Formats: sequence, C-alpha cells, structure tokens
Amino acid sequence: MNAEKIPDIIIGRLPVYLRALQRMADSGLKTTSSQELGEHVGISAAQIRKDISQFGEFGKQGTGYSIQFLLDKLREILKVDRIWDIALVGAGDIGHALVNYQGFKDRGFHIVMIFDNDKGKIGHKIGNFTVEDADKMIEKVKAASVKIAMLTVPASEAQNVTDKLVQAGVKAILNYAPINLNTPTHVKVQYIDPATHLQRMTYYL
Amino acid sequence: MNAEKIPDIIIGRLPVYLRALQRMADSGLKTTSSQELGEHVGISAAQIRKDISQFGEFGKQGTGYSIQFLLDKLREILKVDRIWDIALVGAGDIGHALVNYQGFKDRGFHIVMIFDNDKGKIGHKIGNFTVEDADKMIEKVKAASVKIAMLTVPASEAQNVTDKLVQAGVKAILNYAPINLNTPTHVKVQYIDPATHLQRMTYYL
Repeated sequence: MNAEKIPDIIIGRLPVYLRALQRMADSGLKTTSSQELGEHVGISAAQIRKDISQFGEFGKQGTGYSIQFLLDKLREILKVDRIWDIALVGAGDIGHALVNYQGFKDRGFHIVMIFDNDKGKIGHKIGNFTVEDADKMIEKVKAASVKIAMLTVPASEAQNVTDKLVQAGVKAILNYAPINLNTPTHVKVQYIDPATHLQRMTYYL
Repeated sequence: MNAEKIPDIIIGRLPVYLRALQRMADSGLKTTSSQELGEHVGISAAQIRKDISQFGEFGKQGTGYSIQFLLDKLREILKVDRIWDIALVGAGDIGHALVNYQGFKDRGFHIVMIFDNDKGKIGHKIGNFTVEDADKMIEKVKAASVKIAMLTVPASEAQNVTDKLVQAGVKAILNYAPINLNTPTHVKVQYIDPATHLQRMTYYL
C-alpha cells in the first residue's frame, strides 16, 4: 500500500462508505457485501470492491465484509480513530447550526473554539462556547495546535481569514463561503456550497 | 454533443467554474484563460480545457475565454439560466441558515416554501416565510410543481420525508441529514455532510 498513489476521488468515497457502514452497525447488522453497501450509497459493487482493495484484503469471498472490522479499518485509514479539534470562524446562522450539529458525534471531530469579528457577538454564548475575538485567532489556534478550521464568514472576508488560519498552522479548512480560496499546497480545502450542489443536479432536470 | 455521455464528474466541476467566473466578472474582468481559471479553482488548465470542450468550442487559442460568454454557456448547460423554486423541509438551525443564505442569489435558486412537523414551529415566520405543516407538503409541492427540495430534518425522518417528496414529484434533493437516501433512479440526490468533507481531509493530515 502506497498512500501517496491513491487517487483523491477514492479517498472521497471512503467517508461515504464509513457513514453507511456505521448506520448498518447501529441497526444491528454484523456483516455486509459490496452489493448491499452499494445499494445504500448508490455506487456499484465492483467500484466499492476496487476502492477498498486499495488498502488491503478486508473482505472474504462468499462471506463478505465484517462491518466492525471494515469500520475500524476505514477510521484508521481516514485518521478518524481519534478526535480532531476544530476552530469555527464565524458565529452566524451556519456557525450556530454547526455547533448544534449532531453529525460530528463519534465521527472524529469536536469544535473547541469559535471566533467572530463582530463586537455584538464576541463574548456571547453559542451552546457551551463563548464567541472569542477574531483578533486573537492566530494566537489561540496556534497555542492549541488546532489543525482544522470551519469557515462560515462572508465571502468578502474568507480569503483574509484563511491567510490568518494558514499562518496559525491550520492544515485543513472546510469553507462555507461561496468563494474559492487560495492556500499553499500543503493546506487542504473542502467546500460546502449548496448552490454548486443544486447546479450539479439541475443539469439532469 | 451528447449530454447522455458526459461523465457526472465533469458536470460536478462546471458549477465550480461558474462560481469562479462569476467572481471574476464581479471584479471587472472581461477575459480569462484556462491557466488563470485553474489557479482560482485548483484544477489543471488541461483538465479545464478538456471539460469545457465537451460542450463546444468556447475559447480561442491565444485570446482565451470571454468570461461573459462562458458564464452564459455554463448557465445554459447547467439549466440555471432560469430560476428554480425550492421547497425547504426542516425549520431548524440549518433551515434558518439556508433561508438567510446569500449564496443562492443570481445562481438560479429561490426558496418558495418551508415545512416542518413541529407544532411549535408551524405558523412561525423565518425571513419572509411562514413555516407550513409537513402534513400538507405532498399536496402543496405537487400543486406548485416544485422539482427541487432541500432536506434539513433529523436523520431518523429523512427517508420518510424523501419518499413523500418523490411522491410529490420532486426530482432533485439536497440532503443535509447524515444518512444515505434511497430514491428511484430518476431522482437525483446530493449530500451536504460536513463530517464526510472533514474526513476526506484528515486522510492527508
């Protein structure tokens, strides 16, 4: 196995398999097949077998996959067999939604700090968190060695905040602002932009 | 040009090009190159040229692309040269964020109705909308011929709501619940699940 050589598109499907397998485990299932998993995620059984085989021999011909074993392996591969601290930047509607989001639970992530530059928001509580002054962001993110940030600031501020996060040592950014960010190649960015997802579907309508 | 044969992965990149080109246009630029566009979106110039050439000859050797022409073409291809009505199901935090989201503006989408099954939310206002009873969803979505829905309900209710939306004639669903949905093949589903995006990045950390 040579991690360098596995295409990013395969890596992108692993979290989807992980989510479906967790759901199977939650409903009491012990084993599954690439056919069954494929029906859950809308990906062909052949593709799933090919993707998973990149990382080793995790299934047995005829008996399929042990769900728990595959869950453990996928978590290990994706490095979510641990908890990653996250800095949230932007205490607006989406920021609130993310603090209350139940989908991070048991999936490797934990918000630990929230920043905003709005004097009306700094010092206020969101859930268990007090919104902190964005002016202290670089210092605090660096001190806590936080490597992942979620960005829910307006598009006009997103690049500026990104530059500061990179300076603070952040290596992965989940960006909700509808703008493409420029980052050094060692910093990963993923985008959550509902309009682009919708536009991908209207093509087929 | 044979729309049937263009891989979905290419379709998925077009909204990203569209977003970057719109931003260039907003900042006053008139022309661009595949190199320049590539730097904005983090995709190689060769890939961009190949993707765009699937749909016709939109650029000129040496002079590049007219941004406005390419914007118009991409909007036409993605069918967002019109406005699509959207039904929003789920009036929680994410629902609120979506109603207030500025990223839909001029990108082809318009929320027209909001449903929830919580008696404490039905009848209340979110922005300009009154939250309607989810029991009337099938009837109202059908009557208004709404073809696109955004789903921000809990995972435990997402499949049930999806079945009703499909029954009401919805053909595209943007799902925020952290669960894979089963739909007939003629119904497209896209997922917004921040944990899967984060897990795709932790692999590289």
